[in-house]
Amino acid sequence: MRKGLEEEATKQPNPLSSPLIYSSPASGDPMTQAYWQCCPWLLLLCDMCLELPRAQVPWERRCEKLFNQPSEHLPVTAVNTTMRLAALRQQMKTWNLTAYIIPDTDAHMSEYIGKHDERRAWVSGFTGSAGTAVVSMRRAAVWTDSRYWTQAERQMDCNWELHREVSISSIVAWILAEVPDGENVGFDPFLFSVDSWISYDGELQGSSRHLLSVTTNLVDMAWGSERPPVPSQPIYALPKEFTGGALGRKKYPPSEAICRTTPKLRLGSFYPHLMRQHQVGLFNLRSSDIPYNPFFYSYALLTDSSIRLFVNKSRFSLETLQYLNTDCTLSMCVQLEDYSQIRDSVKAYASGNVKILIGVSYTTYGVYEVIPKEKLVTDTYSPVMLIKAVKNSKEQALLKASHVRDAVAVIQYLVWLEKNVPKGTVDEFSGAEHIDELRRNENFSSGPSFETISASGMNAALAHYRYSRTKKFLQCLRAGVAVNPTKELHRKLSTDEMYLVDSGGQYWDGTTDITRTVHWGTPTAFQKEAYTRVLMGNIDLSRLVFPAATSGRVVEAFARRALWEVGLNYGHGTGHGIGNFLCVHEWPVGFQSNNIAMAKGMFTSIEPGYYQDGEFGIRLEDIALVVEAKTKYPGTYLTFELVSFVPYDRNLIDVRLLSPEQLQYLNRYYQTIREKIGPELQRRQLLEEFAWLERHTEPLSARAPHITSLTSLWAASALAILSWSS
Amino acid sequence: MRKGLEEEATKQPNPLSSPLIYSSPASGDPMTQAYWQCCPWLLLLCDMCLELPRAQVPWERRCEKLFNQPSEHLPVTAVNTTMRLAALRQQMKTWNLTAYIIPDTDAHMSEYIGKHDERRAWVSGFTGSAGTAVVSMRRAAVWTDSRYWTQAERQMDCNWELHREVSISSIVAWILAEVPDGENVGFDPFLFSVDSWISYDGELQGSSRHLLSVTTNLVDMAWGSERPPVPSQPIYALPKEFTGGALGRKKYPPSEAICRTTPKLRLGSFYPHLMRQHQVGLFNLRSSDIPYNPFFYSYALLTDSSIRLFVNKSRFSLETLQYLNTDCTLSMCVQLEDYSQIRDSVKAYASGNVKILIGVSYTTYGVYEVIPKEKLVTDTYSPVMLIKAVKNSKEQALLKASHVRDAVAVIQYLVWLEKNVPKGTVDEFSGAEHIDELRRNENFSSGPSFETISASGMNAALAHYRYSRTKKFLQCLRAGVAVNPTKELHRKLSTDEMYLVDSGGQYWDGTTDITRTVHWGTPTAFQKEAYTRVLMGNIDLSRLVFPAATSGRVVEAFARRALWEVGLNYGHGTGHGIGNFLCVHEWPVGFQSNNIAMAKGMFTSIEPGYYQDGEFGIRLEDIALVVEAKTKYPGTYLTFELVSFVPYDRNLIDVRLLSPEQLQYLNRYYQTIREKIGPELQRRQLLEEFAWLERHTEPLSARAPHITSLTSLWAASALAILSWSS
Repeated sequence: MRKGLEEEATKQPNPLSSPLIYSSPASGDPMTQAYWQCCPWLLLLCDMCLELPRAQVPWERRCEKLFNQPSEHLPVTAVNTTMRLAALRQQMKTWNLTAYIIPDTDAHMSEYIGKHDERRAWVSGFTGSAGTAVVSMRRAAVWTDSRYWTQAERQMDCNWELHREVSISSIVAWILAEVPDGENVGFDPFLFSVDSWISYDGELQGSSRHLLSVTTNLVDMAWGSERPPVPSQPIYALPKEFTGGALGRKKYPPSEAICRTTPKLRLGSFYPHLMRQHQVGLFNLRSSDIPYNPFFYSYALLTDSSIRLFVNKSRFSLETLQYLNTDCTLSMCVQLEDYSQIRDSVKAYASGNVKILIGVSYTTYGVYEVIPKEKLVTDTYSPVMLIKAVKNSKEQALLKASHVRDAVAVIQYLVWLEKNVPKGTVDEFSGAEHIDELRRNENFSSGPSFETISASGMNAALAHYRYSRTKKFLQCLRAGVAVNPTKELHRKLSTDEMYLVDSGGQYWDGTTDITRTVHWGTPTAFQKEAYTRVLMGNIDLSRLVFPAATSGRVVEAFARRALWEVGLNYGHGTGHGIGNFLCVHEWPVGFQSNNIAMAKGMFTSIEPGYYQDGEFGIRLEDIALVVEAKTKYPGTYLTFELVSFVPYDRNLIDVRLLSPEQLQYLNRYYQTIREKIGPELQRRQLLEEFAWLERHTEPLSARAPHITSLTSLWAASALAILSWSS
Repeated sequence: MRKGLEEEATKQPNPLSSPLIYSSPASGDPMTQAYWQCCPWLLLLCDMCLELPRAQVPWERRCEKLFNQPSEHLPVTAVNTTMRLAALRQQMKTWNLTAYIIPDTDAHMSEYIGKHDERRAWVSGFTGSAGTAVVSMRRAAVWTDSRYWTQAERQMDCNWELHREVSISSIVAWILAEVPDGENVGFDPFLFSVDSWISYDGELQGSSRHLLSVTTNLVDMAWGSERPPVPSQPIYALPKEFTGGALGRKKYPPSEAICRTTPKLRLGSFYPHLMRQHQVGLFNLRSSDIPYNPFFYSYALLTDSSIRLFVNKSRFSLETLQYLNTDCTLSMCVQLEDYSQIRDSVKAYASGNVKILIGVSYTTYGVYEVIPKEKLVTDTYSPVMLIKAVKNSKEQALLKASHVRDAVAVIQYLVWLEKNVPKGTVDEFSGAEHIDELRRNENFSSGPSFETISASGMNAALAHYRYSRTKKFLQCLRAGVAVNPTKELHRKLSTDEMYLVDSGGQYWDGTTDITRTVHWGTPTAFQKEAYTRVLMGNIDLSRLVFPAATSGRVVEAFARRALWEVGLNYGHGTGHGIGNFLCVHEWPVGFQSNNIAMAKGMFTSIEPGYYQDGEFGIRLEDIALVVEAKTKYPGTYLTFELVSFVPYDRNLIDVRLLSPEQLQYLNRYYQTIREKIGPELQRRQLLEEFAWLERHTEPLSARAPHITSLTSLWAASALAILSWSS
């Protein structure tokens, strides 16, 4: 699954490298903002959209009249926010605030946010995943990026102004114009990352407006009983056989595990550690508070003498409670405290003779601000994240095992498509449904790891490459017309078109993510060339040998070289980390400049692509484990070992473009697939799939023209000799 | 010529990628510090060194006794600094300073500094190029990196402490211990980059010591009449035919040129610009104030209504003055002001209703501090640097022309070596002298662009790879024993060893820099493999096609891939910008993370290498122009065009390792060399060199074993058929 908003390295002006249109939200990538978080394939609905009412009049003109008096041009899709704003302003008055900032995130900087956290959407009507709102006593405004302009225009009523930019300095300029000297600008500190707070604070410095941290969320107060409930489903312990051990509570208590592996923590004797929800992998607990990620809202405070987990206690069954308190003694048992107590508990703890370490990337200002500066030790990433990034041998085995089962599901899907597409009975939606279903049938399945991207023909290019082209779809989609798309809205899969499927599963042993692109008919020469060059990029990066601790950023271009060579490129990043039944986008592993250096035991996706606007889209994504490379001369070198085991489409590979080394690599990979997946298919009596696998992993061979010609030369000569001698 | 202290991307723990030992100082690379600035080949003296007195006792023990009472163990090479320190402390008292910081740079952050700027060397005795001194009323200390520890121990007397680290926080810790609350720490703001000031200031924040900017340099006051004079040789105008025009005063006045090309400057109407000495290319003036760079000490202040050049006016001839004031009207004529007036003039100018833009990387705190913050607009690099980085077509032609003549000199040298090395009459020193002489004979020559690196056998590895091994040489070299090495100290060139020569020239039309490695006898298989893989890296990067505006950092690994593949690597950067009769290391072009993105018209070196400790060193360096690439599909893509025209050593190339594409590229390059250099050699009647060139640029061909075997198969079959049919 694609990740990374924009290709930073190759900021080229031509349209081929325009900012990525669509990308699932990064799990907490602190540097990339404004992901489009909705279901990617919803983008593909098309025809119906054109029948929707359109905004014929520019947004600014439409609302030229008095506030609260919707002009005749206001789209029917706009939400009436008059009462909502009045309720919010009532709250602001109570707190003596002249303006209030409403960000688009939750208290854990999550990749996906729950319904009850969609505060900006509720107050403004605008449901896009990226955008900040500010409400003053007289005005209300939303700042969002170009992907959402049309949507915002259609969803917001005339109470709102739309600002077509996202910089904090632009927001602050508005605030400075709106808030008189000496008055207060409020914000919920739990919705501000430390970095955003620093930015707002810096921009406001020198002005006499006060940035006021208000821990009571005023939108929630205004929202009242209408606000969707906070999740309360059970939190459960992952069975021991699905945990890595080293970080698992049963083997080492968390604090000990961390202290053993992070020398930094040993510097002082009082370096406890604050954790965010995503890091609860540490406790081997899971739930389902947000879509696609088995997380639950929580914090942890680790000290040298206690392990404190802040969570809604009522969600623990007796059994889970027992799990948490077996095999531990006193301070090494997990103490449960209420989720809402995190701030007070940290404050109280910080009053002692302690130092507190936090990874600022994922900590909100709500926790940060209660720790006195002299007691604070900061790092970009929490050590838990860094430890988690390197999987131990059991975790590696678990992740690999989940990929074997996942490959079976994907192969079943590809076989099913091969049979059914020619009949004309499959569309993008039913395809996505079918692969999700196949995964659900696998052992230990816990649903998809993100919303399946199932895109045929031009839709694959639309959905993954240039977002601007998808605006018209968004108009209807986000305007509330077709939130649950039906079958009719989807493009039919056909033997005349390429088809791209990017999907993944959550299993108790691992999270998967794989993209294959196929063509069941006769691809054009250009399609074959583009596909082969994407494959060459995947191979060149996968087989690269590089020194230990090399940053992904400096080797990422190997995935692009074959495309660049002929003037092609793709506008997104090349890969992301992945978790053990955690996040499909597990930061900070990957190929972006703010990712950490590669180390043995990390897992990353490798996913070059090519997108031909209005025609087709190609992406070949595999998950790879970073392993030690055996080199001719001694040294600590690394390389990748693919753990995704699904063959590419032979129909789209132009073998003549592959170098002998690429071909050899590919055939070795196919051999591995046969060895890993073949027996599994046989064991399950999936004989049709087994035959398909054998066919699709036949060794490919280069047609070497000069050898052929030499051979014919030989034949011709032999004939000549024969005729001469006879 | 190598540049870049340490390989950032591939911080691998094994010895192969240890920090680069030796590198000529970067021309103002603000990120790399502590270059070793002495003549590289001086390192190679060896035998005599062993006869020097040695420090048998560790530094700290040696000076355990009272200060100013040299123990019996003090090396004879130590400089007595008692009087110098007394004079400095007298000055400090006058200015009410408790400590004084003495950095190692000059007022223009130059790559090389003049004798009169070697203040830290004078006051401490320690002459290494990198190291900061701090003197308090009681103590004196030097902070330097591992390359200089031995040297510092031998050169400093017991007045001094040696700190074996370089961090500003370590320096500040010492200051905090030494300077009581409320007292002053002085520094010369012209010797502090803006960044160093920010670091010192940040570290001292919260303590009650005052960092005091004192524009009178106290070391200079103490140094008195003994201080070498500031350069006063004439400043001359470069003839029109050697200037690029666009930035040349004759075609566009500088301010106009800048405003036309830098949109940023148009934001306000008052964005004048401060320039440093290196940027005087803008005026097409040159002199020779520092070694190897045709620069003179100066500043420029460009406003929308004036061009002010701060310089020692007496250095201008009537003719140069005339040049500066021809073809211009009023405000577009260059006003000369005294060098010492820069600070006051900027201060006065800043008092108006203006905004002042500076590139902080090359501006000292001396100028920065007089501009009120609200009038300051900062960028990392000055726009002049950015404009200068992209050469216009005339500048490109000039640089290329200088490389044609330079190639003739290098080819003459290689031919001379081929004849004379077998006779045993050449050593590293005489070789270096000879190539310098050959360059000097070329038209428009203005001497070498850096000190020629001429290294045979293990010295090539020593001199370029692991500096620690060179400590013993430094001991004698820098201890004042052998400042001018004689022939005897140098390794004799031999047909049994590899030889590396890295050299360049300053010509009125361009600056050159090229490295070739040769072997006149029988190289080992490993030497051939390493050489071929370095060559493959050079080729892979040179022939790479990449999107416009790609950062060098993300493509640099292509120069390493062939080495990495077998577990080899090199520990330095891969290239640097180069000027038109300016700097051999022209920042900010290159392949490091703080270099700017590649653009058409830039020149960079491409110089992978491999260094086998104690055995040999390989580097293949060419200068390349960034040009538009013609791609199969449309798009704005770039590639490199080599402008260094000297063939590699066929004796060291293992053709079997090259891919068909690499081989084809190499043969095309050789064809270009023949076309460019052949006629020039013939024109000059250098017939021996011409024959050598023809021989060394013969197309290389792959021995393809399978074709051979097919051919023999054919022959065998033919025979079989014949015998059968007969």
